[in-house]
Amino acid sequence: MSELAIAPGQTRLGWIGTGVMGASMCGHLLDAGYQTTCFNRSPEKAEPLVARGASLAGSVAELVAQSDVVFTMLGYPQDVRQVVLGSDGILAAARSGMVLVDMTTSQPSLAMEIAEAAERQGVAAVDAPVSGGDVGAREARLSIMIGGREEVVRTLTPLLELLGTTIVRQGGPGAGQHTKMVNQTLIATNMIGVCEALLYAQAAELDLETVLRSVASGAAGSWSLSNLAPRMMGGDFAPGFFVEHFIKDMGIALDEANRMGLALPGLALARQLYEAVRAQGHARDGTQALILALATLNARTWPTGASG
Amino acid sequence: MSELAIAPGQTRLGWIGTGVMGASMCGHLLDAGYQTTCFNRSPEKAEPLVARGASLAGSVAELVAQSDVVFTMLGYPQDVRQVVLGSDGILAAARSGMVLVDMTTSQPSLAMEIAEAAERQGVAAVDAPVSGGDVGAREARLSIMIGGREEVVRTLTPLLELLGTTIVRQGGPGAGQHTKMVNQTLIATNMIGVCEALLYAQAAELDLETVLRSVASGAAGSWSLSNLAPRMMGGDFAPGFFVEHFIKDMGIALDEANRMGLALPGLALARQLYEAVRAQGHARDGTQALILALATLNARTWPTGASG
Repeated sequence: MSELAIAPGQTRLGWIGTGVMGASMCGHLLDAGYQTTCFNRSPEKAEPLVARGASLAGSVAELVAQSDVVFTMLGYPQDVRQVVLGSDGILAAARSGMVLVDMTTSQPSLAMEIAEAAERQGVAAVDAPVSGGDVGAREARLSIMIGGREEVVRTLTPLLELLGTTIVRQGGPGAGQHTKMVNQTLIATNMIGVCEALLYAQAAELDLETVLRSVASGAAGSWSLSNLAPRMMGGDFAPGFFVEHFIKDMGIALDEANRMGLALPGLALARQLYEAVRAQGHARDGTQALILALATLNARTWPTGASG
Repeated sequence: MSELAIAPGQTRLGWIGTGVMGASMCGHLLDAGYQTTCFNRSPEKAEPLVARGASLAGSVAELVAQSDVVFTMLGYPQDVRQVVLGSDGILAAARSGMVLVDMTTSQPSLAMEIAEAAERQGVAAVDAPVSGGDVGAREARLSIMIGGREEVVRTLTPLLELLGTTIVRQGGPGAGQHTKMVNQTLIATNMIGVCEALLYAQAAELDLETVLRSVASGAAGSWSLSNLAPRMMGGDFAPGFFVEHFIKDMGIALDEANRMGLALPGLALARQLYEAVRAQGHARDGTQALILALATLNARTWPTGASG
């Protein structure tokens, strides 16, 4: 693996999964001059990348045949399992010396399983989920949390630096996914606090913007308070990050915690409350829609003006 | 009230409650040249202020007789009730034109009761709890959340500006206390997330400092994560803010929420978990000791090296 020198014109890249995140990220690799082949279940979503110079593969096997490094950015762990380990998946077509980088937020245990299966074929697999959302992907300002062998991660770094600003190897296979679960655990529980605080302020007949002036920059401050509370207050529930994807992530974190014998009551509560958000029809709204579920729980109305 | 022009050499101040916070805050008023009288249940705690030029009153009534503006910075709502409304309290000795500023974190409903009782005597009462802790008090960088009549708050502003950097009137009597409850609700629930995230990272055998490099500056970021997680990781449980005071605050917030007909499941969970922290003997440790209760819950050990 360490012989693989990464450079445009020398390294051929493959990108599977050209959704909102994947398309932005793949675009940065193209912009850097890399010969890149794309594949997407719905091929029309890859067309803008093809217009920018990417090749479009008709199958995963065709993409693998044309790639030295294959990236995946998919939806759910079952998608990763099928695309990587399935009978017509990446490893079935892979050759020794190839590198696989799964950037999907997925199960740490699946990442370990993939790394083992890959090693048996002489393929190096790295798990590298990201945080930063669609904006971070577009602006190449993602935080990339990496699990995999050190020399492989070092080799990949020039590519990852095209996608993000915080690029940290967290350990062996699965450590990137575990770190992403830490990230989601932090967000999940804090979101409850942000919503409950706003509902308290509303019930106490305070002016919410004035309250934020007092609390946002001190010990109560957080990214979610500064960035999502104003959207809640404006009734803007457009997705920065989908409720249904967040539920997936919390489910993975709770499953892994259960496997490790760890009770996480705050995360479990967050998961339950987000199930209520989904039950109320907000699966495709942004995570800030939690305020609606907690308002409904309390038989209170909350502005939904700017929402779709 | 609006005739009261605030200026050193012209306005006589009284300060009741010279604990860690109160002593720092009163000291700033002295430094600005105000003639200041102190009173504290344990008078020896006021001695450093007397050495800096404050007068020491033998009773609340004596202090009130020498003061145009009286500040209180006490422990619990029952202390506020006794010192303000008690038979030998502030209002029993007050005269028309005086101003009362309670900076204790206390009940919004008590703040309203005090404001009403004060008005009947021609006394203006303001609730002005703070956030920022002992460091914020020492450095005069507090956030001061104010409830009271607008012209009174305007008159007091030159004094409050000696104590803090974020000085916001939130509404009429009680609005300052309500805003502080919003602040504490935000902190309480987020603390669960910070602790659960660290326990998850520990169980997954990640390196905690490396994990923070990936998650602290993005969407999972918060003041508590940046400031308290490192103390938890270092086994440093010295109090920035006492567990027992935080439990008091959460109790007030939950009582007020109950009175307003509001269910706050995250805050209720935080309160219960902090009761466990207290049960485990950490009432006088800092709020970051929550990690110990959650570790014990999971039969895991957590470093307590630097703790007292």
